[in-house]
Amino acid sequence: MDVWQAMQERRSCRSFRPDPVDPKALERILEAGTWAPSPLNTQPWQFVVVTSPEVREAVFQEAERCRAWAREESGWEWLDKYRVDFLRQAPVLVVVIGDPRKTGVDRFQKEGNVAYQHACAAAIQNMLLAAHAMGLGGLWFTLFDRANLRGILEVEKERMPVGIVCLGHPEKAPRPIPRKAASEKTRTIG
Amino acid sequence: MDVWQAMQERRSCRSFRPDPVDPKALERILEAGTWAPSPLNTQPWQFVVVTSPEVREAVFQEAERCRAWAREESGWEWLDKYRVDFLRQAPVLVVVIGDPRKTGVDRFQKEGNVAYQHACAAAIQNMLLAAHAMGLGGLWFTLFDRANLRGILEVEKERMPVGIVCLGHPEKAPRPIPRKAASEKTRTIG
Repeated sequence: MDVWQAMQERRSCRSFRPDPVDPKALERILEAGTWAPSPLNTQPWQFVVVTSPEVREAVFQEAERCRAWAREESGWEWLDKYRVDFLRQAPVLVVVIGDPRKTGVDRFQKEGNVAYQHACAAAIQNMLLAAHAMGLGGLWFTLFDRANLRGILEVEKERMPVGIVCLGHPEKAPRPIPRKAASEKTRTIG
Repeated sequence: MDVWQAMQERRSCRSFRPDPVDPKALERILEAGTWAPSPLNTQPWQFVVVTSPEVREAVFQEAERCRAWAREESGWEWLDKYRVDFLRQAPVLVVVIGDPRKTGVDRFQKEGNVAYQHACAAAIQNMLLAAHAMGLGGLWFTLFDRANLRGILEVEKERMPVGIVCLGHPEKAPRPIPRKAASEKTRTIG
């Protein structure tokens, strides 16, 4: 698939068929993640691939708990009707874990120690593009408490869960959400 | 260009020819950035396009200052010979600025208020892929003090500079840097 088409067509998929993801396709998606750039080429990502129904259920329950908590904290009413069933439906969850010990020069900076997360985000974007290019749906999901997710996945406390990539065959085509024009987002110093 | 080819071939370019970037190409690169996903579709990015030689020089000087500072802080000897002349050479710098007020539910979390930066990182990755697809070189650069960069670019203090994308025609093809295999980076909970 053309790179422009992949970038423009990729959308967050929130409804999946139960059919499994072909292991070769999953392999290519993970490989796409590894091609992301990273500070000092530290490749600070780890991919935890969750297919176990029990563990996906635990992630779902954590998201539900986090949703209720966020509803209280935020007062945002839309969270009442926000369903996270796609965490149960998607046959594969790829949890992207970052390693803060593999960041760049920003480790010494006041607002720093975050470049390793940026690299993980670039890896997630690559994975979403790769999934779309193979006709799979993907969703970048972050509604979880990091400490709780570490517990569920047995991740050491030094590492940082950056996002969950839900993967599977789309039940229906995701709704295309519009974007503001680049010109509205751009200021030029010429 | 095929999306796989773009992801696999894209490399950090650190040497640019002085030829300007075609405005249409730059427009497409910025548009590619806007196609990134973001929390609650907040599109928390702003793109500051710097073509002014004076302002590029100021960014270069800030990077040199930051390099000397980082050399002291880190004790990393490689910083002695790390040249940042590409900041002067590259005809276009796109500084990607994030808006912390446009993050997701993570604004309420202890280790949060960072999802807007992840979205900016995804936008940067899209821009780098787009640049490569058009035969341009790109570099994701972060050696700057955020407060100083805000000053140079007249960015309000509430906003967060996430990265500088250096763009131009490559002087020579970047060296392909290898990656660890995805299998080495993956743990499966099946």
